Amino acid sequence: MTYVTIRDVAERAGVSPTTVSQILHGKGRFSRKTRDFVLSMVKSMGYVPDSRARAMRSDPVKTVGLLVPDLRNAYFADMVASMEEELYARGISTLIGSFGEDSARQDSFLRNIMGQRIDGAIVVPKGVPTHGIEDVVRWGLPLVFVDRRVPGLTSVPYIVSDPGQGIRQALQALYRKGHRRVGFVSHSSLASTTLYERESAFRELTAEMMPDCDCPVVDCEGEYDSRVAGLDVLMAHHVTAVIFGYSPDAITMIGLMQKRQLVIGADISVVSFDDIEVFRLMTPQVSVISQQAQEMGRRGVREVLELIGAREDAADDDGKVASPQEANDSMERHMVAIPTIFIARDSIGPMHRN
Amino acid sequence: MTYVTIRDVAERAGVSPTTVSQILHGKGRFSRKTRDFVLSMVKSMGYVPDSRARAMRSDPVKTVGLLVPDLRNAYFADMVASMEEELYARGISTLIGSFGEDSARQDSFLRNIMGQRIDGAIVVPKGVPTHGIEDVVRWGLPLVFVDRRVPGLTSVPYIVSDPGQGIRQALQALYRKGHRRVGFVSHSSLASTTLYERESAFRELTAEMMPDCDCPVVDCEGEYDSRVAGLDVLMAHHVTAVIFGYSPDAITMIGLMQKRQLVIGADISVVSFDDIEVFRLMTPQVSVISQQAQEMGRRGVREVLELIGAREDAADDDGKVASPQEANDSMERHMVAIPTIFIARDSIGPMHRN
Repeated sequence: MTYVTIRDVAERAGVSPTTVSQILHGKGRFSRKTRDFVLSMVKSMGYVPDSRARAMRSDPVKTVGLLVPDLRNAYFADMVASMEEELYARGISTLIGSFGEDSARQDSFLRNIMGQRIDGAIVVPKGVPTHGIEDVVRWGLPLVFVDRRVPGLTSVPYIVSDPGQGIRQALQALYRKGHRRVGFVSHSSLASTTLYERESAFRELTAEMMPDCDCPVVDCEGEYDSRVAGLDVLMAHHVTAVIFGYSPDAITMIGLMQKRQLVIGADISVVSFDDIEVFRLMTPQVSVISQQAQEMGRRGVREVLELIGAREDAADDDGKVASPQEANDSMERHMVAIPTIFIARDSIGPMHRN
Repeated sequence: MTYVTIRDVAERAGVSPTTVSQILHGKGRFSRKTRDFVLSMVKSMGYVPDSRARAMRSDPVKTVGLLVPDLRNAYFADMVASMEEELYARGISTLIGSFGEDSARQDSFLRNIMGQRIDGAIVVPKGVPTHGIEDVVRWGLPLVFVDRRVPGLTSVPYIVSDPGQGIRQALQALYRKGHRRVGFVSHSSLASTTLYERESAFRELTAEMMPDCDCPVVDCEGEYDSRVAGLDVLMAHHVTAVIFGYSPDAITMIGLMQKRQLVIGADISVVSFDDIEVFRLMTPQVSVISQQAQEMGRRGVREVLELIGAREDAADDDGKVASPQEANDSMERHMVAIPTIFIARDSIGPMHRN
């Protein structure tokens, strides 16, 4: 059996072997076009980073740890699966953990991976400082936060989701279809910063884009009963469209609307946050504001690989490893905001006059 | 700050410290009642296995690897989260991976964890022999299969789901409500052994329990269009109840039924495999046949801890580690079948005469 080598890929792509290697290892600065082209070549030619070849080059397989609050949450599961795919395509191994929103469990995972052969970590942390996360920073492990950050740990790069663009696009689409009374459903009992930011963005954007309209915000505090009550409030305001900040509320309230003989996409238009599979399976398919979990995962991977690369380059240059403080300082306050995007489906339609 | 010790827990629970320790480490044979009681004490008293105390006892924290095909599949995500919780409660760390149904990725994860400090692994494998999985067995790592097994690797204990009991319970409930024409929806293009076993069990049980009834099996081969066609066939057979083997089919076809003005739970009764969150959120809530993912995870954990314990005991007894072959031989053909169970909700009701 003959293996495709980096040299083969380089020749076909018309670049140097070093370029292919750097792109595979997330090093160097290349245009997105070059990077995508080379990676597509790698994929189509079936190049597989060979562990035996690596061992001979004494370049052991790298491993990155990924930690998220909850794998039962489809958004985090999607994000972590995307990061794992992206890392695997670059020949990097992954070790995943979740911590059920429990600080002690988060710290336990971090302590464990620090005892393994690990090269970096991407973490969706508890939003509070803990010994475990502070130890990782002090220890100098290349670390990136995604979706949330920890107050005080400003040296850690983080990738956040910006709800504004997606809500703006959804409101524009609804406005063009004649909607002037758009409701927003929040869920305060979750005490989620992300959800609070969505609600704030909705308030600001409706004030700016639809200043003369009635755009109520209702709050589901619990499960079934609060959702029935929330729908009553929306109906009392005669809204013709609803944006849901929290997807489980959308699934239940769409069912409640149908039970009240409202035709989704005709009598009432519906948009929900989170691009999860069930919204593509429902009839009609539900329009969503996507956080682009995959794009967030990709950026998280790129950032952590840059940190790992910077550390190695420093080691190569001086013959000694840069202090973690130096490595972290150079990235200070590095924030990447990934915009949300609106995806229109049959759950929105022209405003019905009742 | 004072820490709760194992001794404190033992005193309060009225058992010996050794019993608490054994239960925390999944060793020994205790009744489910004792085990649950001690673990609830551990939890309510806030006992945390202390890594410093462990280090002093030179009893390092154990780590178990968990590998599933796809974290975006809610069933596997739920199973893996349950196993992680169960292991954490016993003071054991977890490293998770997924492989997107790709054999090379599966083997890459296995090679990686064999290079880490790992004590055992629970795997939902590709159903074909691969070098990676054979190497793990040869290497003697304590290994358990869940949900699927690999032909030829008979020495590895495995936990499987038995669809029969859940389907029998669902058919009994439907029969008692007067249903005599029950359809089953399969999805052959997935080439899933699990789904094939569900379909076979349905055919056998309807032949046994409802021999004079018309119980058609329809096949969704693709996505939307095949689901529309499948519903047409079911309606042509005048079925009054439907059991879905694959939950995405259920979500779409329930929407299609509602679009045709069929009231779920009145005009037509619906049951789906897989106890996923969306079925509790829908209106009406959907009756399910649960694979008991959590119970499968718990049993997988128990099996792997027994293997790890057996290995250590052998090392204690002889002063040398048992050969992997010995450790595996003692478990030969160890299979545990976890029954599925039927959970009735509002999506089933008395048969309507049309």
